[in-house]
Amino acid sequence: MNATAATALPFGRAEYDGRLRRVRERMAAQGLDCLIATDPANMNYLTGYDGWSFYTPQCVVVPLDGEVMLFTRAMDANGARLTTFLADERIFGFPDDYVQQRDRHPMEWIADELAARGALAGTVGLEMDSYYFTPRAADALRARAPGVTFADAGELVNWVRAIKSPAELALMRTAASIAERVMAAGIEAVRPGVRQCDAVAAIYEAQVRGTAEAGGDYPAIVPMLPTGQGTSTPHLTWSDAPFVAGEATILELAGCYRRYHCPIARTVFLGEPSRRLADTARVTVEGLATALDAVRPGVTCEEVEAAWRGHIAPHGLEKASRIGYSVGLGYPPDWGEHTMSLRPGDTTPLEPDMAFHMIVGMWMDDWGFEASETFVVTGSGAECLCAFPRELAVKG
Amino acid sequence: MNATAATALPFGRAEYDGRLRRVRERMAAQGLDCLIATDPANMNYLTGYDGWSFYTPQCVVVPLDGEVMLFTRAMDANGARLTTFLADERIFGFPDDYVQQRDRHPMEWIADELAARGALAGTVGLEMDSYYFTPRAADALRARAPGVTFADAGELVNWVRAIKSPAELALMRTAASIAERVMAAGIEAVRPGVRQCDAVAAIYEAQVRGTAEAGGDYPAIVPMLPTGQGTSTPHLTWSDAPFVAGEATILELAGCYRRYHCPIARTVFLGEPSRRLADTARVTVEGLATALDAVRPGVTCEEVEAAWRGHIAPHGLEKASRIGYSVGLGYPPDWGEHTMSLRPGDTTPLEPDMAFHMIVGMWMDDWGFEASETFVVTGSGAECLCAFPRELAVKG
Repeated sequence: MNATAATALPFGRAEYDGRLRRVRERMAAQGLDCLIATDPANMNYLTGYDGWSFYTPQCVVVPLDGEVMLFTRAMDANGARLTTFLADERIFGFPDDYVQQRDRHPMEWIADELAARGALAGTVGLEMDSYYFTPRAADALRARAPGVTFADAGELVNWVRAIKSPAELALMRTAASIAERVMAAGIEAVRPGVRQCDAVAAIYEAQVRGTAEAGGDYPAIVPMLPTGQGTSTPHLTWSDAPFVAGEATILELAGCYRRYHCPIARTVFLGEPSRRLADTARVTVEGLATALDAVRPGVTCEEVEAAWRGHIAPHGLEKASRIGYSVGLGYPPDWGEHTMSLRPGDTTPLEPDMAFHMIVGMWMDDWGFEASETFVVTGSGAECLCAFPRELAVKG
Repeated sequence: MNATAATALPFGRAEYDGRLRRVRERMAAQGLDCLIATDPANMNYLTGYDGWSFYTPQCVVVPLDGEVMLFTRAMDANGARLTTFLADERIFGFPDDYVQQRDRHPMEWIADELAARGALAGTVGLEMDSYYFTPRAADALRARAPGVTFADAGELVNWVRAIKSPAELALMRTAASIAERVMAAGIEAVRPGVRQCDAVAAIYEAQVRGTAEAGGDYPAIVPMLPTGQGTSTPHLTWSDAPFVAGEATILELAGCYRRYHCPIARTVFLGEPSRRLADTARVTVEGLATALDAVRPGVTCEEVEAAWRGHIAPHGLEKASRIGYSVGLGYPPDWGEHTMSLRPGDTTPLEPDMAFHMIVGMWMDDWGFEASETFVVTGSGAECLCAFPRELAVKG
């Protein structure tokens, strides 16, 4: 069915071949004969698969030698045929009576199919910390595969994703052009007396409509909109209460195009901000610029963070949490890639075509400020994908 | 901080006390001394906690005797203080340098804190098949708790959620009033030449704006919008390609209010549908009505499905997958509760105030049809929460 795919693949076949080659190089280096990828972003990265089916078990199986297979619920197999390059006979749908039962588990069916095809042998890598791979799924798989050695493959595919191709960067630049519109719509919509939900409606509208050339996809994270006292913490969503004059609102949003993200965070104040907030915002934005200036190939993640820390400390500010992470392809609940973090102890050297979301969030007892930039490491520095003022947006 | 909560709890304290009492009754019956709930919907159900923080490990811990505790990332602890009834000292934030590291895991920190408080003793129940509780998290917990017996608590809390309180049903009715507007907006927006993303922008706008009295929340599942050949499978989202005259589009949408859902699915055809599609749509809608007519207390889930099957079989139709599931409170990726399914083998008897999404999706080789209703079991039958024509919507 893939010959008449309703949804064209976002990349040419050579791009997928290259990804698989790099994944298999890492598999060989880690002594894996087979990899079972359960992270929806990794499944998409390896095959193109795109559907909201990760609420039942599914996986892409990559043998070191042999063809890639995709397993999903029977009703979703047609979705895999329509969105991947895989031949129909490499797509397997488990019967519906395995769904959400206490006496059987879809991973048992999958294990039996894999065993019948000789793919469960030697050392098999599992993504032991991926969101939709549960302990029960892992137990079901292991119970059906006696004699097989299972190993935690960790973030093997995620690390391959860390360096973006030109085609991926093009999608992220499109996502950035959407993100600029989304943030503009959000800041415009936050006004005293306006219901939070009505502002978020405008944000979603901008996220999904996208541009005239490129329609938007759903970001992996819904709009974050802590307001008032809620700005003391980053991950609150909205209510139908109105925005209040004299309060701040943090907007952490994104543009998304074909599952590639460009996140952006800004803070709005309705009225005259306190000296404390204004000063913190100014120093934080300066620190963000300082950290971005430190980016170049060969510099480590922790050195970038140290530049930030070095700027804010003399102002009496400190931040306990990381200031950024690798970003790109993603599904809910996260657009981060779970590999590099900009924080002390991460000694990964930056390389060209890595992409990060650098987010400096300052959460105090009952107030806060955030700003962020999504950037790509170039041959000589950081290229920010969005052009949008970073300062505290003050509205009368 | 909860005394000045920015986000008022959706239910009174007595409702949460009743939930905890019923959960502890089940814990005692299953021999559990402690329950570690990791499903975000269960965490919300037990404490009110509402934030997009489930992309790092978190849990609500319910000792059989002793006070409830909530664990999350340090930066999200203020979010828990603002959205739950828990006293500040019952909310614990793990340090940020545990996030996404290879050499340590947040569940180790949580295990140590629990052990220090005597909560890791006897038999501890885990939600072994819940999203966001990974094999690595389970291993980390077990490794830090020698001598503790861990048991799969299964869907213990989910089963308590199965019967809704009057206050919960009121939220679902509000969600239904949003869902009706959402579906009307969706059907209106699907027109030949209109980009799919632009129709979805209108759908999101309606979902989040809600009504004048009640702003919408984000549904646990994004708008599903398979179109053309894509209607052969249920879980495809949208692209920026235009809708095409002579093709069908399935809309599976929801209204959501304070995390409670009312899903609804309908099918639109642009032009003159084939006899095959029109006939299938008619029989399917009749079958839906027949199954709804079979609902009453004491009837089992499988008997409801049998009524559907009995209607469609003489017309030469069959459906391998379940026709519905328990629904209510939810977070991505699912609004289903993972307890009851309307399918052969599920002998659970219906009880008043259970709520289901009955969805009859017919997915053929390269075409399909869907319709659904969210209903509550009453003393004598099924009360559908939405009033919306079920027939294939034919647009010129």
